[in-house]
Amino acid sequence: MFQPVYLDHNATTPLDPAVKAAMLPWLDGLCGNASSRHEYGRRARQAIDEARQKVAAALGAHPTEVVFTSGGSEANNLFIKGAAAGMKPGLLAVSAVEHPCVLKPAAQLVRQGWTLREIAVDAAGRVEAQDYAELLQQRPALVSVMLANNETGVIQDVAALAAEARSSGACFHSDAVQALGKLPVDFRLLNAAGVHALTVSAHKINGPKGAAALVLDKRVELQPLIAGGGHERGLRSGTENVPAIVGFGVAAELAAQRVAELPTRLAQLRNTLEHGLTALGARIFAVDAPRLPNTSYFAFPDIDGETLVGKLDREGFAVASGAACSSANPEPSHVLRAMGVAPEIARGAVRVSLGAGNDENEVEQFINALRATVGRLQGLTAMTV
Amino acid sequence: MFQPVYLDHNATTPLDPAVKAAMLPWLDGLCGNASSRHEYGRRARQAIDEARQKVAAALGAHPTEVVFTSGGSEANNLFIKGAAAGMKPGLLAVSAVEHPCVLKPAAQLVRQGWTLREIAVDAAGRVEAQDYAELLQQRPALVSVMLANNETGVIQDVAALAAEARSSGACFHSDAVQALGKLPVDFRLLNAAGVHALTVSAHKINGPKGAAALVLDKRVELQPLIAGGGHERGLRSGTENVPAIVGFGVAAELAAQRVAELPTRLAQLRNTLEHGLTALGARIFAVDAPRLPNTSYFAFPDIDGETLVGKLDREGFAVASGAACSSANPEPSHVLRAMGVAPEIARGAVRVSLGAGNDENEVEQFINALRATVGRLQGLTAMTV
Repeated sequence: MFQPVYLDHNATTPLDPAVKAAMLPWLDGLCGNASSRHEYGRRARQAIDEARQKVAAALGAHPTEVVFTSGGSEANNLFIKGAAAGMKPGLLAVSAVEHPCVLKPAAQLVRQGWTLREIAVDAAGRVEAQDYAELLQQRPALVSVMLANNETGVIQDVAALAAEARSSGACFHSDAVQALGKLPVDFRLLNAAGVHALTVSAHKINGPKGAAALVLDKRVELQPLIAGGGHERGLRSGTENVPAIVGFGVAAELAAQRVAELPTRLAQLRNTLEHGLTALGARIFAVDAPRLPNTSYFAFPDIDGETLVGKLDREGFAVASGAACSSANPEPSHVLRAMGVAPEIARGAVRVSLGAGNDENEVEQFINALRATVGRLQGLTAMTV
Repeated sequence: MFQPVYLDHNATTPLDPAVKAAMLPWLDGLCGNASSRHEYGRRARQAIDEARQKVAAALGAHPTEVVFTSGGSEANNLFIKGAAAGMKPGLLAVSAVEHPCVLKPAAQLVRQGWTLREIAVDAAGRVEAQDYAELLQQRPALVSVMLANNETGVIQDVAALAAEARSSGACFHSDAVQALGKLPVDFRLLNAAGVHALTVSAHKINGPKGAAALVLDKRVELQPLIAGGGHERGLRSGTENVPAIVGFGVAAELAAQRVAELPTRLAQLRNTLEHGLTALGARIFAVDAPRLPNTSYFAFPDIDGETLVGKLDREGFAVASGAACSSANPEPSHVLRAMGVAPEIARGAVRVSLGAGNDENEVEQFINALRATVGRLQGLTAMTV
């Protein structure tokens, strides 16, 4: 089968063979319902307990702080709506560059009487200090700022932002879905700084789709998004997805081990990539900001991002044009818009996100393919002008 | 490894080998993000489209009516909260014997100004006609009555109930999680009668945990429970769990094929079981009501259900004491309470739920073990009196 070079690890990652091996026994024969009080139920419960310990250990959290969900979108919705449900409607602030699964539930709260304020970012994609300080004076009840952006890879200084928000009494959440595995993520340290909740997801760290977690300071009261049998300390009901949770545990453990060396290796690969991109005349977004070591977001003048992604796909390279989840949306990226990038440039945006399986050879092949493709497209543009 | 006889198929079911085989390729190498516009993304999207067609075909629905979720609890919460969010708070009615994942979200709506009314059932566990007729005169905006009960197996005449509700303008939902695979379930017929939405789940029909669906009349407007990237026609955001959805498709297809013969075979097995139970002096709940062919819910005088389940577990038989999801709850079953069963009898409740893999031999072994165990426990009771 045609196997293009995969350069889209911020969208999803291949399942690690060790993760798969841990999941397989739970797909053979009977995987019990972890709520059942018999042998099969106890085995499933024990497997979930062990996975919870692994996820907690990987994040420097206590196992009782880990609330398993079906995915990062669910975890983000759980925090935003779940925390809001127990409060009087007030001011809710989210950064302008959040993932839609933070922006959309935040917008849904407006109908329930909440005031939504988007926190501005500067041209490098970082939360704008003055705007943030002004916001905090209005004493928001809820604040959500992501640890690292899925499109640009830009890292926010969430510990500092949370510490500032502390004095205003806000409940602070951070979407760490893209950060985990690419940066050290320590909930104990973040929590001490004032972060109350963190979202992480298995399928972004070579784990399975179908498992994620909200890591939650237990002093925060949440109403469940999915209410029912009272699973996950009453915060998320529904029969646990045992194979996926088991896989998440192993993936989190591996991610924590690898984060000592992987970022350096990814950064080297990205250097090679970005030297090539610059030589070809690409504009790299947020190049001066602290970024995830695996992510490069760029555009070529007068070349449409969707078109370039399509051509590269046929050449055997899987990359993204804007966030994967909104690729069906022809609007230019809201992240680049928030950074003040002109729409005609934003429309050219292409994202390469590297992973543990990529090597120098693949990056060089990609640059060669890009050179040829961009050359052809620029030739076409020149002819039609 | 110790492999007890599994008699708890209403809690969860073993993965069918054909389902597992269909899932495995999606756990090998790279399973794309179905939103990605490259080869890996397109393959994932196609797999989801095919699964959607299979689930729709198995239920007599159109593929565009199938909204995939992570589980039955999520699908029930999505309907109850999602439909309510678009309406002015009014009257919401759910049967008193619903699963907690219908009862709890319904109770959450009360804080938003809704009035919650539980529909009474008779001693056989069926919706009480007079109470239902009176309710409809109060013109509820939302009604939810399950197709078959997870504890008793009692089947409601949902088509007739929905037809009655029609004239009052209610939006009608039915939790069909326990019915699918054990009864023919046809959304087109139910929809014609007035059912607007149906919940079904993969892991109850020998499919994987992590996939379920809300089958939804497209005229019903729902707000998403999980908002974000706009997946599932905007009704359920989040990266799709491709392996689980693929498995659900195959499981639904197999369930639809097997429903021609499986119920008859299960009913024969249950006859053997219930002859044995009656001979041992058990009281079988809802024995006179139309029931799922696989479910037997019973109690022995003066024997605690939890205790009996524990003893049987050690003898090598996996059965349930009340609904699996609330087995951690020491309260007697709300279903039996609604049926007017005295708490001291309800505390003895034990559920056997048969599956395709069970045979006469296992049922006879179970009756023998039960005879010995009940004999011992009654002896103990006699001694302590």
